[in-house]
Amino acid sequence: MKSTEGTAAAKRAAGERAAAAVVDGDTVGLGTGSTAAAAIRALGERVAAGLDVTAVTTSHQSRAVAREAGVPLTDLADTARLDVAIDGADEVALSGAVSGSGGLALDGDETLAASPPLIKGGGAAHTREKIVAGAADRYLVVVDDTKLVGTLSHPVPVAVVPTAAATVERHLQAAGGTPEPRDAARKDGPVVTDDGNLVVDCAFGDVSEPATLAAELSAVPGVVEHGLFVDTTDAVVVGRDGDATLLSVE
Amino acid sequence: MKSTEGTAAAKRAAGERAAAAVVDGDTVGLGTGSTAAAAIRALGERVAAGLDVTAVTTSHQSRAVAREAGVPLTDLADTARLDVAIDGADEVALSGAVSGSGGLALDGDETLAASPPLIKGGGAAHTREKIVAGAADRYLVVVDDTKLVGTLSHPVPVAVVPTAAATVERHLQAAGGTPEPRDAARKDGPVVTDDGNLVVDCAFGDVSEPATLAAELSAVPGVVEHGLFVDTTDAVVVGRDGDATLLSVE
Repeated sequence: MKSTEGTAAAKRAAGERAAAAVVDGDTVGLGTGSTAAAAIRALGERVAAGLDVTAVTTSHQSRAVAREAGVPLTDLADTARLDVAIDGADEVALSGAVSGSGGLALDGDETLAASPPLIKGGGAAHTREKIVAGAADRYLVVVDDTKLVGTLSHPVPVAVVPTAAATVERHLQAAGGTPEPRDAARKDGPVVTDDGNLVVDCAFGDVSEPATLAAELSAVPGVVEHGLFVDTTDAVVVGRDGDATLLSVE
Repeated sequence: MKSTEGTAAAKRAAGERAAAAVVDGDTVGLGTGSTAAAAIRALGERVAAGLDVTAVTTSHQSRAVAREAGVPLTDLADTARLDVAIDGADEVALSGAVSGSGGLALDGDETLAASPPLIKGGGAAHTREKIVAGAADRYLVVVDDTKLVGTLSHPVPVAVVPTAAATVERHLQAAGGTPEPRDAARKDGPVVTDDGNLVVDCAFGDVSEPATLAAELSAVPGVVEHGLFVDTTDAVVVGRDGDATLLSVE
């Protein structure tokens, strides 16, 4: 079992490696979650050392971290294009992305044969995260090595227009899923996203065809965005203990 | 040119014909707009005469019309399935749906070879309308005959998460569209939908492949729902002057 301390060091190493990929003049998208926060803090240190960037955030949380880290911010609603976005993930599937058999040794940077599909949305920020990912010329995912899997199987978080709660649940069941509305903690009733929507976590077992499922979920009336990110990722920075490895899509 | 009086009579005739398709015990979805309102009023007359139905509405407007008409209402958020939904449309394309050459005489009920694609959302209610359409076992569209076309070409209304305004506009341009953010009247700034989203009207010229465009728009990050309704419609009630014709998908 991974120690919490080891995981924290892995997240910090991955965040620093990702922040190092930002260059002077970039407009940067900043994701949500603990690993993305590590990247934001590392980016703040580079800003303090003179790096000239402007950033947009994907949540109240990432906005707070960026402000504290001293990263200059602008408004996502006014930003049509980003040079780069850095974000975490709940699960990254490497089975289709790694050439040949076997896993990755993670003892040096490697090239991936295809963009690895992800599941995101544990923090319920995946709508803005997907908007930012879709706006970025380069989408960099930062994770510790516990997030790497062969095949995606994490429940897929789905942001839902509140009036569609019952119908979406029925459509997700028809699509072979087991939907579970996400209840809030420290607030009665459901989680409400930063955009005012509800979240349903939907288990599908092993997701063998992520692109097909992604299109199917996007077409469900009342689904705002779902947490399957397919054909979006340009590179994955994987932290393990105090080191980070860059896996670039060729 | 069509007289306003003729159009009003056509909408009334179509609304009455659609309301006549509802049977005792049905749960009914009620659309938004002037022709849907005519159907709601006709349904109210049947309720006053003893018909036992429960309905859900798709907007503040349809809710107000239904309450005034005396139609018993329940909450869309609690309703997973509907027996039938009745709604209007801005454009109904019959080119792929009519067997053989030539148009429709509209002098008697006819059968359509395929479900005709629609464009909806002039009233900015198309998110809830699509939720309701997707929940209904039978989806009945009511229009006056001025809404019938060969090929769809009306700008497609797109409901957009507010933070995605700039990125969605860029994606729509990349998809070959000419996006136009919809400004409000009697309120400064943009139209805000009943669900709190913005609306972009996006012209694509002639929409020759509605299913392809629909899937492409659904996949754009930050698009909540768009106004292309494909493979959804089970029948179209067309009003012309004081008469109504039923076109059923075989």
